[in-house]
Amino acid sequence: MTLRPLDIIRKKRDGGEVSSDEIGFLVRAYTNDEIPDYQMAAWLMAVLIRGMNGPELSALTGAMLHSGEVLDLSDLPGPKVDKHSTGGVGDKTSLIIAPIVAAGGVTVPMISGRGLGHTGGTLDKLQSIPGFNINLSLAEFRRVVKSCGCGLIGQTAEIAPADKKIYALRDVTATVESPNLICASIMSKKLAEGIDGLVLDVKTGSGAFMKTEKDSVRLAELMVETGELMDKKMVALITDMDQPLGLKVGNALEVEECIEVMNGGGPADLREVSIELAAWMFYLAARAPSLDAGRELADQLIRDHSALRKFRQIVTEQGGDPRSIDDPKRLPQAQHRTPVTSPASGFVEAIQCEQVGVASLMLGGGREKKEDLIDPAVGLVLHKKVGDPVREGEAFCTVHYNSDTRLGGALNLLQQAYRIDGKPPAARRPLIHRVIFGKGARAR
Amino acid sequence: MTLRPLDIIRKKRDGGEVSSDEIGFLVRAYTNDEIPDYQMAAWLMAVLIRGMNGPELSALTGAMLHSGEVLDLSDLPGPKVDKHSTGGVGDKTSLIIAPIVAAGGVTVPMISGRGLGHTGGTLDKLQSIPGFNINLSLAEFRRVVKSCGCGLIGQTAEIAPADKKIYALRDVTATVESPNLICASIMSKKLAEGIDGLVLDVKTGSGAFMKTEKDSVRLAELMVETGELMDKKMVALITDMDQPLGLKVGNALEVEECIEVMNGGGPADLREVSIELAAWMFYLAARAPSLDAGRELADQLIRDHSALRKFRQIVTEQGGDPRSIDDPKRLPQAQHRTPVTSPASGFVEAIQCEQVGVASLMLGGGREKKEDLIDPAVGLVLHKKVGDPVREGEAFCTVHYNSDTRLGGALNLLQQAYRIDGKPPAARRPLIHRVIFGKGARAR
Repeated sequence: MTLRPLDIIRKKRDGGEVSSDEIGFLVRAYTNDEIPDYQMAAWLMAVLIRGMNGPELSALTGAMLHSGEVLDLSDLPGPKVDKHSTGGVGDKTSLIIAPIVAAGGVTVPMISGRGLGHTGGTLDKLQSIPGFNINLSLAEFRRVVKSCGCGLIGQTAEIAPADKKIYALRDVTATVESPNLICASIMSKKLAEGIDGLVLDVKTGSGAFMKTEKDSVRLAELMVETGELMDKKMVALITDMDQPLGLKVGNALEVEECIEVMNGGGPADLREVSIELAAWMFYLAARAPSLDAGRELADQLIRDHSALRKFRQIVTEQGGDPRSIDDPKRLPQAQHRTPVTSPASGFVEAIQCEQVGVASLMLGGGREKKEDLIDPAVGLVLHKKVGDPVREGEAFCTVHYNSDTRLGGALNLLQQAYRIDGKPPAARRPLIHRVIFGKGARAR
Repeated sequence: MTLRPLDIIRKKRDGGEVSSDEIGFLVRAYTNDEIPDYQMAAWLMAVLIRGMNGPELSALTGAMLHSGEVLDLSDLPGPKVDKHSTGGVGDKTSLIIAPIVAAGGVTVPMISGRGLGHTGGTLDKLQSIPGFNINLSLAEFRRVVKSCGCGLIGQTAEIAPADKKIYALRDVTATVESPNLICASIMSKKLAEGIDGLVLDVKTGSGAFMKTEKDSVRLAELMVETGELMDKKMVALITDMDQPLGLKVGNALEVEECIEVMNGGGPADLREVSIELAAWMFYLAARAPSLDAGRELADQLIRDHSALRKFRQIVTEQGGDPRSIDDPKRLPQAQHRTPVTSPASGFVEAIQCEQVGVASLMLGGGREKKEDLIDPAVGLVLHKKVGDPVREGEAFCTVHYNSDTRLGGALNLLQQAYRIDGKPPAARRPLIHRVIFGKGARAR
């Protein structure tokens, strides 16, 4: 039987179920430029509105995954696991977790992304380390993973080309905000790493793409179910992004803070989330018999500096300057600093987290247009987080900047981002909202 | 405020109401090639699934209408009315009604379409008359309308160019079957004729695009409401298309049957529907004080041959050979004829009407692809209609054909199209199912 794009569009349009063959055909033909953008756009809009069931989503993810190469790491001993975050502000855990887990003897083949919107990206942070090369070929990547137990690169042309093409089209047809399409996009890239297990860090709150816990849970359930259908060990942690994670926001500043944590210091929230995610990775990899054992192992690998040494090794293998790990003052530094001060005394009631991300972006820490160059040195250091007492005139945070013309807008946003109240907030939001593990019921 | 296509797509995607300004911008920018096909495709899919309310549909129709020229016939005395049919098999009433109504002193500026899918088109039928020119400029059209009270042409490049471009995109993105988009497409073209009133013939049944009465009524209500919002006098007749109208199907054959009716003969069903539609046109134009008076007037204009004389005049003015009206044997004739016979005795229980249309198309009477040339002579003449008794071996119909290679498939379809039963059908479907007149409630 000949498959025809119009029949497949019509089926989804009318709320029907599209077969695995039909989805495979559509993705393959679109990737090969045999189906025009306008037909794919119509289908994506129908998918966004009508939704997909589990088998459809698996078929879509599988078709996007197999549009490119899938790493085969079966010649390396032991399980391979990775972590993926849906993105946030100050969300730098990958740079801590990957070395911890690799130091614990589990392979972590991590393919990461750039900053998106107001959120930072692992690749941009890594590139603030002088010489660090994120553009390895898959062959070079495999060599680094083999020698270090971990590698950190960006999506190559060989990985899920269908996702690249579909993502670009979604961006210009208002079809980004579909949990099914988000899930297929993330999972097709992650499963191309040849992993056995995946820990998902699904952010929720004012600095996340999913602002409500309900939406975060739904996306998490979709991804867990899709991964399980493809025989991967899966867990999703819904973690808080209602204020920045840690105290530093900006590329080099965040690398510095990761080194602090791996040196046994750093802010407690960042340390806690990192250890929790690493513990789950150990548990999925059967490297730890329980979560508690996993936490203990992660903590120990920080205390004995194994994690930091592993990070130094990865940086060296990927062409980065290891002296910037030993002495973070060698990381790019901004020329100017200025404080943002509180207009009143009281307690920090809330921090509009997305605005903090946008402020960092405006300073040059992110991209407003695809072609923008990033300034690795700029960003901000928070002195106050939610619940902290503050006096009138005291600094909320210090802005690190290089250009006066970029400063004004950022200061303005930061001033508005902090909300002060006379009394301390009643309840604190938890850091880990929920864990989604095992076969979860999912809404369509 | 700057209008952005993505915002407008997003709004409709989420089931919101799009403003008149936004719709105007979208249609204008798309027609000017400033918005790519893939964005329009995403929006059209969202419209198909989410629907539109009355003001949105009026805005869309208005924007498409004003994307091109609107005929101004205000220098001609009296009201101008037209009729539009949603299309069927053997549906040839335009060629009868336009001359009747023009002969009755009401101006009929009729811009028609080609055959679509399994249905015939007025333009294709007219072109079977030797020399008849349907490709007049708007200036020439106006001259013919002025001198005859009627002209019969195709959609020129000046008329609703937005509709032309959007229709072509809908055809390849599975967004044809939206009552709102169908309504906007039809109404934008018809209102460009500069008419005061419009009679809609919305077909229902196995040979119509809307197979159920419910769908037909819904489309009719949308069109009536949209026309009324634009200050047009509107009525819609839901008429039967569960079997072909009249006995002849095929371009020259249908012209011949129209001449039979205008000579006072022809099949009763075709005569009745034509007189009913003409009566409504007279009534909307206030040329008749009641429907009954309108019917009487139409009947009289047939009996005294005014309608046929008017048709002859239009044909002559538009370059056609009037001798083919006086002597229909001068119309193109197929070289071969062959009967399709009944395998059993009994009564015709049903005729699968769409199959009859496809059979005519396969003989060469319509187009399978846009580029196909039409053979004006081919088609078929029915001898039996629903409820008629038939003996084994007796002919259901006679096929007129020119090419043996095209015959087999058509015969096959026609043989299957007739269903025979032992006893006569209990109830006959009415010719006129319903009339929708005045402000009708409409479902979204």
